[in-house]
Amino acid sequence: MRLFAQCNLAYAVDTAVEAIAKVHVLDAPDQRIVAETLTLSDGARLATVAAADGTRLLRGEIEGAVDLAYTALVDVAPRAPIPADARQHRWDELSPDTLEYLLPSRFCPSDTFGRFVAREFDADAPGGARVAAILDWIHASIDYLHGVSNAETTAERTFVDRAGVCRDFTHLGITLCRAAGIPARAVGAYAWRLEPADFHAVMEVYLGGQWWLADPTRLAPGDGLIRIATGRDAADIAFLTTGGGARAIAMTVSVAKIGD
Amino acid sequence: MRLFAQCNLAYAVDTAVEAIAKVHVLDAPDQRIVAETLTLSDGARLATVAAADGTRLLRGEIEGAVDLAYTALVDVAPRAPIPADARQHRWDELSPDTLEYLLPSRFCPSDTFGRFVAREFDADAPGGARVAAILDWIHASIDYLHGVSNAETTAERTFVDRAGVCRDFTHLGITLCRAAGIPARAVGAYAWRLEPADFHAVMEVYLGGQWWLADPTRLAPGDGLIRIATGRDAADIAFLTTGGGARAIAMTVSVAKIGD
Amino acid sequence: MRLFAQCNLAYAVDTAVEAIAKVHVLDAPDQRIVAETLTLSDGARLATVAAADGTRLLRGEIEGAVDLAYTALVDVAPRAPIPADARQHRWDELSPDTLEYLLPSRFCPSDTFGRFVAREFDADAPGGARVAAILDWIHASIDYLHGVSNAETTAERTFVDRAGVCRDFTHLGITLCRAAGIPARAVGAYAWRLEPADFHAVMEVYLGGQWWLADPTRLAPGDGLIRIATGRDAADIAFLTTGGGARAIAMTVSVAKIGD
Amino acid sequence: MRLFAQCNLAYAVDTAVEAIAKVHVLDAPDQRIVAETLTLSDGARLATVAAADGTRLLRGEIEGAVDLAYTALVDVAPRAPIPADARQHRWDELSPDTLEYLLPSRFCPSDTFGRFVAREFDADAPGGARVAAILDWIHASIDYLHGVSNAETTAERTFVDRAGVCRDFTHLGITLCRAAGIPARAVGAYAWRLEPADFHAVMEVYLGGQWWLADPTRLAPGDGLIRIATGRDAADIAFLTTGGGARAIAMTVSVAKIGD
Repeated sequence: MRLFAQCNLAYAVDTAVEAIAKVHVLDAPDQRIVAETLTLSDGARLATVAAADGTRLLRGEIEGAVDLAYTALVDVAPRAPIPADARQHRWDELSPDTLEYLLPSRFCPSDTFGRFVAREFDADAPGGARVAAILDWIHASIDYLHGVSNAETTAERTFVDRAGVCRDFTHLGITLCRAAGIPARAVGAYAWRLEPADFHAVMEVYLGGQWWLADPTRLAPGDGLIRIATGRDAADIAFLTTGGGARAIAMTVSVAKIGD
Repeated sequence: MRLFAQCNLAYAVDTAVEAIAKVHVLDAPDQRIVAETLTLSDGARLATVAAADGTRLLRGEIEGAVDLAYTALVDVAPRAPIPADARQHRWDELSPDTLEYLLPSRFCPSDTFGRFVAREFDADAPGGARVAAILDWIHASIDYLHGVSNAETTAERTFVDRAGVCRDFTHLGITLCRAAGIPARAVGAYAWRLEPADFHAVMEVYLGGQWWLADPTRLAPGDGLIRIATGRDAADIAFLTTGGGARAIAMTVSVAKIGD
Repeated sequence: MRLFAQCNLAYAVDTAVEAIAKVHVLDAPDQRIVAETLTLSDGARLATVAAADGTRLLRGEIEGAVDLAYTALVDVAPRAPIPADARQHRWDELSPDTLEYLLPSRFCPSDTFGRFVAREFDADAPGGARVAAILDWIHASIDYLHGVSNAETTAERTFVDRAGVCRDFTHLGITLCRAAGIPARAVGAYAWRLEPADFHAVMEVYLGGQWWLADPTRLAPGDGLIRIATGRDAADIAFLTTGGGARAIAMTVSVAKIGD
Repeated sequence: MRLFAQCNLAYAVDTAVEAIAKVHVLDAPDQRIVAETLTLSDGARLATVAAADGTRLLRGEIEGAVDLAYTALVDVAPRAPIPADARQHRWDELSPDTLEYLLPSRFCPSDTFGRFVAREFDADAPGGARVAAILDWIHASIDYLHGVSNAETTAERTFVDRAGVCRDFTHLGITLCRAAGIPARAVGAYAWRLEPADFHAVMEVYLGGQWWLADPTRLAPGDGLIRIATGRDAADIAFLTTGGGARAIAMTVSVAKIGD
């Protein structure tokens, strides 16, 4: 499917602050970039650099009237759902780059969910079936609601509160998978048909030698997801991180289908 | 200084569980490994693998009577203290591998300390002087006390409670440095003259193009520190992480000076 | 000073829920009620009852279009500031009704602030001087900012975040006083000249045989405060507590000076 | 049943601190005190006072070698289990003294459990049946384990961690009942046949015009419970609260059956 994704971010920054922005489409075999543009205002003194996982990030200083506009034309390959028999790896089969996604992070304190996961999901076979059971549990147990969570909400909080948005669903999914011994990471994405249009947060699990994409909210079709960045949780995939105050003026995100 | 470090870990594991152990001395220019030995009992089915930062980790399965014994003879180069004028980098000078150490993690929620750091340390010059001010503040404000913290204690909790052990001091130091825009990471270490002998947790900051080691507890001489692993916080540098129950039977850690 | 206070609360409630409202002016010697009115819509099936401390509360069921309008004409006596030498009681001088305000509560976890309070305020004389030092510390350390806290924010969170609104300032003041061994409680209030007009949260400490009112935000003149309810923290003095969903439609609060 | 309860508390206190102790048997119709003794060392300068709910508390100053020994011979009336049809009150039937036990407290943040309780227990009839469902859920979901919780553990933490001791079970039971609109409070108790012998924490709910006792751990027989103190949570019923450091030297608690 050919998709056209774009975002426009506008901020007002009184005193120059350091910043990191992650808005570029990840250049990977499953999502080929046909064309892309980046437009920065004078106040957005940001340079691009690529991380080992392919995530490209902009970092530098922002000041005054900061405008960042990005567009990408992308061919997204069809995405298979996670097979129920996708194999869960023994840890001695995993490399350090994957093992780190077993560990707890800022918003995914998986170290505190061991007993719950053992009680709730031990009847499900390890691997794809257990991930499916976790995602089904989230779908059945958590309400999708705006306004009950914020930028500091952890998976522990969402587990109690039983409501949240895409970020919270993803954090809870990652947390439960890690507590089940399955590497899981956060993915920032452009999402076709997401209502209302916004950056989306989804997750990936590592099974059978590859990362599989999943959307715990079930709000966006899998083929309509364009990955931007991967990381441990929302802290790593934020579209903007600043070292000080920046006042949001406007933000638009949109994804349109251009061809099959 | 030539040091001989060793650890012995013994666990009883009723049902086989996955595990990651980090006990190997990091092989780096400032700490040359002269000789090392690793002895594993039959129940410790662990294989070694090296991460990009040089950390070597053991991972696999443990079951039954689990014994892990490691020794290393190491020549540690003298370590310079952080110069007051060590330069704080602009973020556009940093690579993604370093930028990640600006972000909040499980035990270091630096995203919530921005206002405190701005109020308390803005009078100190960025870079080495600001790190020194942060370490001085911790030394003056936090009591070194056993029994007030545990494996789930975050820097936020320690900041309120004003007491903790090496892990807590290090988490608070990392958190405040990140909130000040300075990359900071956790380091697991063998420490000469640490009383009582134990694994030690210290920190590193990235200034002037290199990582500088610092011990927020001021309990161990800098030259007596042998680095084992680096990571975002205690979750990444734990000497043992398991995917289930393991009963600690015994643990000894010791470091002796063998030569100058 | 003669003040005219009023509030109008409008809610939409799809399914009937239980509710408690606290909007009545406390009838006490220092604030004589000259006249008052209460108007409830059919959907506000609430009956008034008085608590031991004089707080009057409305409780019952609300459903459909819920409107609650209250007005009071009140003569407020001049309020003396807390004298620096107001005596801190030994605990054996206190009755159980006062002793309970030494204990931690939902938003005031005073049990975790003992070391901080001992370090920071031990140089100040117990009693009025120590309370003054605590209030000065809050004024110097915390920014008055909307949007950084919410209905779940505790004093621990505000202590780290260094910002909040009246509710947060009051919670932190109560917490630090309790940790210093001084009974402290929350007070809901109408406040003259508060900008923007809203219900106000202030605090009281028990020294020298009486409760003294203090406004940690320093936003409203002491003589312009009309007490509504007292309790352990915001949980006890909330103007509305419900056992289920209620959608806020409108709220106005105002206080006008009618005479000297 | 006639029971003989006793406790001995010994502390070493370097510098005099204020203290509150709650060890006296509550004098109430269901537990008639036949005889009791209290022995205090010179360092335990504590005077007794009774609260409105009948709880007697000792408060004053402790210093040096502090010993407190209490014994009571008590006739405990048989206790009926909570009937399934015990009626849940409308809030307009409740007095302020009971309404306060609907509100969240330090360790029972019931304000965050509304959605979970509505999802999980709405199929059960309000009142006794719903309380039974809550207690059954706790019994089925939480492991009784020493060492996973501490003096700062909240019901939110226990809900995630799925393990704890009597204090944690009681906090979770209270929290879920309050979130279901049922007044619930904590009760400190001497408990016959509790293994190992210790102070016990249980709970009471207010249904059908009276308070009903329940032990969420199911460890002690109901008739063998002797109530000491009631309050919002462990903060209110602690057997010892101090305003500073006190080193525990020894503690014994025992309950023996003397007659039927």
